[in-house]
Amino acid sequence: MGSAAQEQASRAAPCEASGHSYESLLVTPAEKHILHVQLNRPDKRNAMNKAFWREMVECFNKIAQDSDCRAVVISGAGKMFSSGIDLMDMASNLLQPEGDDVARISWYLRDLISRFQETFSVIEKCPKPVIAAIHGNCIGAGVDLITACDIRYCTQDAVFQVKEVDVGLAADVGTLQRLPKVIGNQSLVNELAFTCRKMMADEALSSGLLSRVFPDKELMLDSALALAAEIASKSPVAVQSTKINLLYSRDRPVAEGLNYMATWNMSMLQTQDIVKSVQAMMEKKDAKSVTFSKL
Amino acid sequence: MGSAAQEQASRAAPCEASGHSYESLLVTPAEKHILHVQLNRPDKRNAMNKAFWREMVECFNKIAQDSDCRAVVISGAGKMFSSGIDLMDMASNLLQPEGDDVARISWYLRDLISRFQETFSVIEKCPKPVIAAIHGNCIGAGVDLITACDIRYCTQDAVFQVKEVDVGLAADVGTLQRLPKVIGNQSLVNELAFTCRKMMADEALSSGLLSRVFPDKELMLDSALALAAEIASKSPVAVQSTKINLLYSRDRPVAEGLNYMATWNMSMLQTQDIVKSVQAMMEKKDAKSVTFSKL
Amino acid sequence: MGSAAQEQASRAAPCEASGHSYESLLVTPAEKHILHVQLNRPDKRNAMNKAFWREMVECFNKIAQDSDCRAVVISGAGKMFSSGIDLMDMASNLLQPEGDDVARISWYLRDLISRFQETFSVIEKCPKPVIAAIHGNCIGAGVDLITACDIRYCTQDAVFQVKEVDVGLAADVGTLQRLPKVIGNQSLVNELAFTCRKMMADEALSSGLLSRVFPDKELMLDSALALAAEIASKSPVAVQSTKINLLYSRDRPVAEGLNYMATWNMSMLQTQDIVKSVQAMMEKKDAKSVTFSKL
Amino acid sequence: MGSAAQEQASRAAPCEASGHSYESLLVTPAEKHILHVQLNRPDKRNAMNKAFWREMVECFNKIAQDSDCRAVVISGAGKMFSSGIDLMDMASNLLQPEGDDVARISWYLRDLISRFQETFSVIEKCPKPVIAAIHGNCIGAGVDLITACDIRYCTQDAVFQVKEVDVGLAADVGTLQRLPKVIGNQSLVNELAFTCRKMMADEALSSGLLSRVFPDKELMLDSALALAAEIASKSPVAVQSTKINLLYSRDRPVAEGLNYMATWNMSMLQTQDIVKSVQAMMEKKDAKSVTFSKL
Amino acid sequence: MGSAAQEQASRAAPCEASGHSYESLLVTPAEKHILHVQLNRPDKRNAMNKAFWREMVECFNKIAQDSDCRAVVISGAGKMFSSGIDLMDMASNLLQPEGDDVARISWYLRDLISRFQETFSVIEKCPKPVIAAIHGNCIGAGVDLITACDIRYCTQDAVFQVKEVDVGLAADVGTLQRLPKVIGNQSLVNELAFTCRKMMADEALSSGLLSRVFPDKELMLDSALALAAEIASKSPVAVQSTKINLLYSRDRPVAEGLNYMATWNMSMLQTQDIVKSVQAMMEKKDAKSVTFSKL
Amino acid sequence: MGSAAQEQASRAAPCEASGHSYESLLVTPAEKHILHVQLNRPDKRNAMNKAFWREMVECFNKIAQDSDCRAVVISGAGKMFSSGIDLMDMASNLLQPEGDDVARISWYLRDLISRFQETFSVIEKCPKPVIAAIHGNCIGAGVDLITACDIRYCTQDAVFQVKEVDVGLAADVGTLQRLPKVIGNQSLVNELAFTCRKMMADEALSSGLLSRVFPDKELMLDSALALAAEIASKSPVAVQSTKINLLYSRDRPVAEGLNYMATWNMSMLQTQDIVKSVQAMMEKKDAKSVTFSKL
Repeated sequence: MGSAAQEQASRAAPCEASGHSYESLLVTPAEKHILHVQLNRPDKRNAMNKAFWREMVECFNKIAQDSDCRAVVISGAGKMFSSGIDLMDMASNLLQPEGDDVARISWYLRDLISRFQETFSVIEKCPKPVIAAIHGNCIGAGVDLITACDIRYCTQDAVFQVKEVDVGLAADVGTLQRLPKVIGNQSLVNELAFTCRKMMADEALSSGLLSRVFPDKELMLDSALALAAEIASKSPVAVQSTKINLLYSRDRPVAEGLNYMATWNMSMLQTQDIVKSVQAMMEKKDAKSVTFSKL
Repeated sequence: MGSAAQEQASRAAPCEASGHSYESLLVTPAEKHILHVQLNRPDKRNAMNKAFWREMVECFNKIAQDSDCRAVVISGAGKMFSSGIDLMDMASNLLQPEGDDVARISWYLRDLISRFQETFSVIEKCPKPVIAAIHGNCIGAGVDLITACDIRYCTQDAVFQVKEVDVGLAADVGTLQRLPKVIGNQSLVNELAFTCRKMMADEALSSGLLSRVFPDKELMLDSALALAAEIASKSPVAVQSTKINLLYSRDRPVAEGLNYMATWNMSMLQTQDIVKSVQAMMEKKDAKSVTFSKL
Repeated sequence: MGSAAQEQASRAAPCEASGHSYESLLVTPAEKHILHVQLNRPDKRNAMNKAFWREMVECFNKIAQDSDCRAVVISGAGKMFSSGIDLMDMASNLLQPEGDDVARISWYLRDLISRFQETFSVIEKCPKPVIAAIHGNCIGAGVDLITACDIRYCTQDAVFQVKEVDVGLAADVGTLQRLPKVIGNQSLVNELAFTCRKMMADEALSSGLLSRVFPDKELMLDSALALAAEIASKSPVAVQSTKINLLYSRDRPVAEGLNYMATWNMSMLQTQDIVKSVQAMMEKKDAKSVTFSKL
Repeated sequence: MGSAAQEQASRAAPCEASGHSYESLLVTPAEKHILHVQLNRPDKRNAMNKAFWREMVECFNKIAQDSDCRAVVISGAGKMFSSGIDLMDMASNLLQPEGDDVARISWYLRDLISRFQETFSVIEKCPKPVIAAIHGNCIGAGVDLITACDIRYCTQDAVFQVKEVDVGLAADVGTLQRLPKVIGNQSLVNELAFTCRKMMADEALSSGLLSRVFPDKELMLDSALALAAEIASKSPVAVQSTKINLLYSRDRPVAEGLNYMATWNMSMLQTQDIVKSVQAMMEKKDAKSVTFSKL
Repeated sequence: MGSAAQEQASRAAPCEASGHSYESLLVTPAEKHILHVQLNRPDKRNAMNKAFWREMVECFNKIAQDSDCRAVVISGAGKMFSSGIDLMDMASNLLQPEGDDVARISWYLRDLISRFQETFSVIEKCPKPVIAAIHGNCIGAGVDLITACDIRYCTQDAVFQVKEVDVGLAADVGTLQRLPKVIGNQSLVNELAFTCRKMMADEALSSGLLSRVFPDKELMLDSALALAAEIASKSPVAVQSTKINLLYSRDRPVAEGLNYMATWNMSMLQTQDIVKSVQAMMEKKDAKSVTFSKL
Repeated sequence: MGSAAQEQASRAAPCEASGHSYESLLVTPAEKHILHVQLNRPDKRNAMNKAFWREMVECFNKIAQDSDCRAVVISGAGKMFSSGIDLMDMASNLLQPEGDDVARISWYLRDLISRFQETFSVIEKCPKPVIAAIHGNCIGAGVDLITACDIRYCTQDAVFQVKEVDVGLAADVGTLQRLPKVIGNQSLVNELAFTCRKMMADEALSSGLLSRVFPDKELMLDSALALAAEIASKSPVAVQSTKINLLYSRDRPVAEGLNYMATWNMSMLQTQDIVKSVQAMMEKKDAKSVTFSKL
């Protein structure tokens, strides 16, 4: 077991991060400036129940405002990342929706879907980089979740499955929107979405879904936390400006992205972080020795 | 020869699908809910003549309205998928266009190009998944065609060539628009488009143009039909909603795609297909045993 | 050393292309219709100084108007492609910007960033295909530059590094806008941008950043020039229309791209280049024997 | 009664325009190059029945291809322009839609709405200018129709009513999309759409819905036909290019519209119509004496 | 004093609407299904203080979820509608913003502006029609507020002033975005925004900012409440679908709006409200006698 | 004659603004911070010749960079504003365009049109407000020019004419893109564009094209200069930020405009101009007494 992961493991139990108390999630401080968010219903295979859909929004909105946090790792407690939506818990909402006629039931359902979409969109809206560390099954809404993260690592035993068509519906909380923008093989995206077939770690890596694959969960978590630490050592103005502008540009023409970038950086270039970074570079100091103000 | 392909081969001759009678295409029912569309001018290397440009539109508009069809396989009869546009047949349209002055000739040509574009756009507008099964040459307009399909399989001997620049024009019926959104290597897209060089199956696979490569046509067709059968066994509401929303989202920001998806599914979640699918899942029945209403 | 590269090397010294006299760039005619642009401050590791930011605009605007030029190769003189921005030379602009208050400093900086963005956008605005030939380090603004090129070749020793976050800022001259549209692994894009880690040639190739990797600079330049020659032998109407429409379509929905393409080609299809190309094809002549008018 | 209107009235009965035979419409040639389309179910207050929704598409698609037609006037036969949708005739489609479950009924309805939208969108897709000449009631779908026309004239007794909310639905065939882009008072648009109140000719004029108001139908038709004749005397390349680009620009940023315009006119400026027009101007000839080729 | 206004006035004091208790706002039930929201700091000329910016969001989010409410009137208590932002109360936020360097201050300010923008955007996000009833001064942020409303009525003594430039800043909470889409004279919009000159009721009416002008506040409130009552008597499915689609279409091309509308109405046309409305129409009953289910 | 106009008239002759020497334009300093640009070929009715198309770009690019200038008035010397394009001078470009075949002629023409479009787009790109003061004829390209200005004043004798269709072409330098966004009566826009009929000052005012109409040129110029002086007395950060954001928002959805505005103002709110303005306000000083730094 890698040192960071061990540390993390031993620290996880006692040390819930302040202000982050949930039923379905466990949020623990990892190294300095890093939060580790765990899907935490291991006996339910981290199935996403009503509490989860609500708590993710609360959790990531808090992280977005947490000027001490600079990077987030998200993983699943127990044997897998997530088996997806908890159909038992959600059945009443989805199968017996409220409303006096079709129009009113539809109105209710639209509201519900929109709120579920928000559960994963908060990951993107949070300007801190979010690294998904996936082991075992990552099914249905699990795929919706990880496509909203910035970087994806997984273990060799990871299995990805766009499962919604098997339940009789089109995936409606993000996979159909984000997966095609995340990987570079649309024939594969379509195949996965239409057939619900499983995709193993190797295919996921070569398709571009992942950055790296690891032999086991400890090594993966170690590396994810090390990556988070690397990111957390950099200027938060630089890192978070990068995330915001990458997402802005994903959805727009290059010229629009450049215009916004120039408008963004006209103030951000006046940060002390540049002065500190350049100075450290000139003096050949370790970048990690630089202390940046909170953001 | 695989069983499905054999069946298909033996059935092809006698059994043109009802209402689908064409000069340049052969449409045959494959397994239940599946249509097999073949480019059918094998002695002309499936070159696309005037009849083809018109008949594709008619064919896919009919399939779009065919509530019995749930998936389509498109392949080429004879030695190759397609050698592209039939220059001999089309020369009069393209090289001696009508019109009293440059403006009027241009007006005529624009109309012509728009209609040719429609020939492949109908594949996207048809909500049933379309699988391209490619063997041998797939040249020029053949590439335009397959980039409008949802999933691409090919044989080891397949050759892809964006040929238009060699004829003195920029590809104008879809390749320049769709190929870059289909694969994840824009340096390669540009190289192929500027040089007209051939790309073999292996490079096409690794670039993300394809889902899979097969040793020969029989195996490929078998697999394509099996894939179509797999898709056809699922809820048509789920599958066709997925296709429509994948294409909607391809062309828009993530937030726009999510908004549309929520509005789409507010009615689609009221389908009996979900109830049937969940029930089968609870009762551990084979999903293929479920019967879904037509769509 | 390949013959084209040798020729190029021997010719480079004496023969600056007419009208192309710069401090930071060396522009030489290579084969017919081809210009070779070299970043030419080898003793400064081709760091981008004030002259560079200005001269690139001048250089590519001239090339865009040069009806004799049909393709461009861009490479770095000396030991590497480019070490990125020349911090020493630029420090006064960036670290002591002009202005009486924050708003006026911001106004000044926005103007500056916009002009720097233009330095690489001119590569896209130039309708001639531009091939980047990269050896050794390609750091920071070097990555911004190559993502604005159409095709990328590199040597085995090439190293790519999105460096801006290490200097305390978000990359603002193109990388965040173009890199994600160039390659098909967004997890990797994010990782590179957040961590500033180095990416070697092999990973760059498999990620889709490059078309090809070569053992050394001579072979690479030979191949890049041969590729340019191949492109230069084709109809300039066809090639340049292709570049313009690929870029137009990159930033827009497929249907928008098709509409523009039809409007574009309604005049371009009236070119003599098609007649010449088809004739050569019919007479089985070598395409390279055809002479196309200037554009 | 004005002379053109008289002529028109006397000519209308005998002289259906060739190829334009409909149940719900009467299409007659007016002056040279002009077609007059009348909603022609006067005893049913020109209510829009099934035939109408289909025939409008057929009619305007034919006009779009009719190289002899240069302008269209659309009016209502009998006592009013139109009382809107024919609820009796359409009830089965709308109130007892087909389908086995809510999802399938929705699918069917979406298809139906899309086809109804096309009924008015064909007016925009037709490049010939279309002038609506409105007298008496213009209710519900009548408003959807006229907002898709290019120019609107009406009589003093005209009454406009966005009626859909009174029937329990949001207007879905164009009013909500087009009316706000047609007039410059959004407070008024909202009021009309929410309350279904009637708007009289004077308010309609001052709000910008109309170009002109006339005391009676004869004067209005005379003027509309004179306007059409004026338009028909101009270069069809100029006029139709103008319509296409006005509509293109309505839906896009100014810079996008300018780009498209430049690409459009690069061929259209090569028309003989400019030479003829300039020559007539130099020679001080009446512009109407110039003969332009068909388009 | 009109009856509805009298009723309202007498009722206002005792009867705060349930769940709507605020410092800066007074929300009272008016007639059935109608809420009257008053800016309620009359002694401070309804200047917008910190409480206001927060409470508007809370208030309109509640109204959006209130299935009993079908229309909203918003007005100012006391002598005027609003004098705009409360500079005294807000000075610390705006003039002494938090942050260690320019970048961090900017980050803080952007967050603040975004939250202020939300204060008025909630009016648009609320699907119930909102009628602004303006008397006396409507200055600065008051104009931002009313441009986010659906319908505007005012008294003869109303004065409108885009005031921000006089304070040294560009209006950043909505006026620059919404005013030009609300009225049809952009020359006037620019003049108002650059000069901060006052615009009186008559000019505001003729420019299209308003639907109607009234001699005094009582008559205006009476009419606004009568208008709200009229709207509240209609199908809420129809009315709220209309608001949502008008706003959707405002920001998009016509074709996009039509596509969304068709997808929206595929479920909404299955409402019982249509059946009830059509039935009442057939039976010539008063529409107001129909009872629609809550939404 | 008004005092400002007199002053201006007497000053015009001797006093060309420094650095602004042109053939077709006369640029003179008016009051402090104001430049007066005159179309200055009165004997040619201010027809736009080759020099004009080039000099406007030079002129407004200089003004954009002129930190002393805060507002611009543009008018025509002599008897009218402008008779539009100078067909004699431009004929060779337009009627005998260069190029070996249709494609190459088209390429040349597209380049030409794009450059002509730039001639008016520079007015929008210049962040200083530009007021058009129009007397007499404003024909053809004159209309293209004034629609690119921010505010329009005219005299009672002004005549507007969209003239291009009469010359056989669709207006391609801005009218079709900007006029419909400037005024709120699209029926009128279409009528003007299709028929080339003249529009007098009163109709232009009521249609929303203008802010005000004046009895004669002196009064108009006086008022335009007074308006410019009013604008020039305000914070240049506030005014120019307003222009940039009004134009940004014109072309985009409200939410996009708000996002950009927040990003823009995160730095601009840190200006000293706010402090100075608020202070003056508190101390009840005349706003014009405040001195703002250059921008």
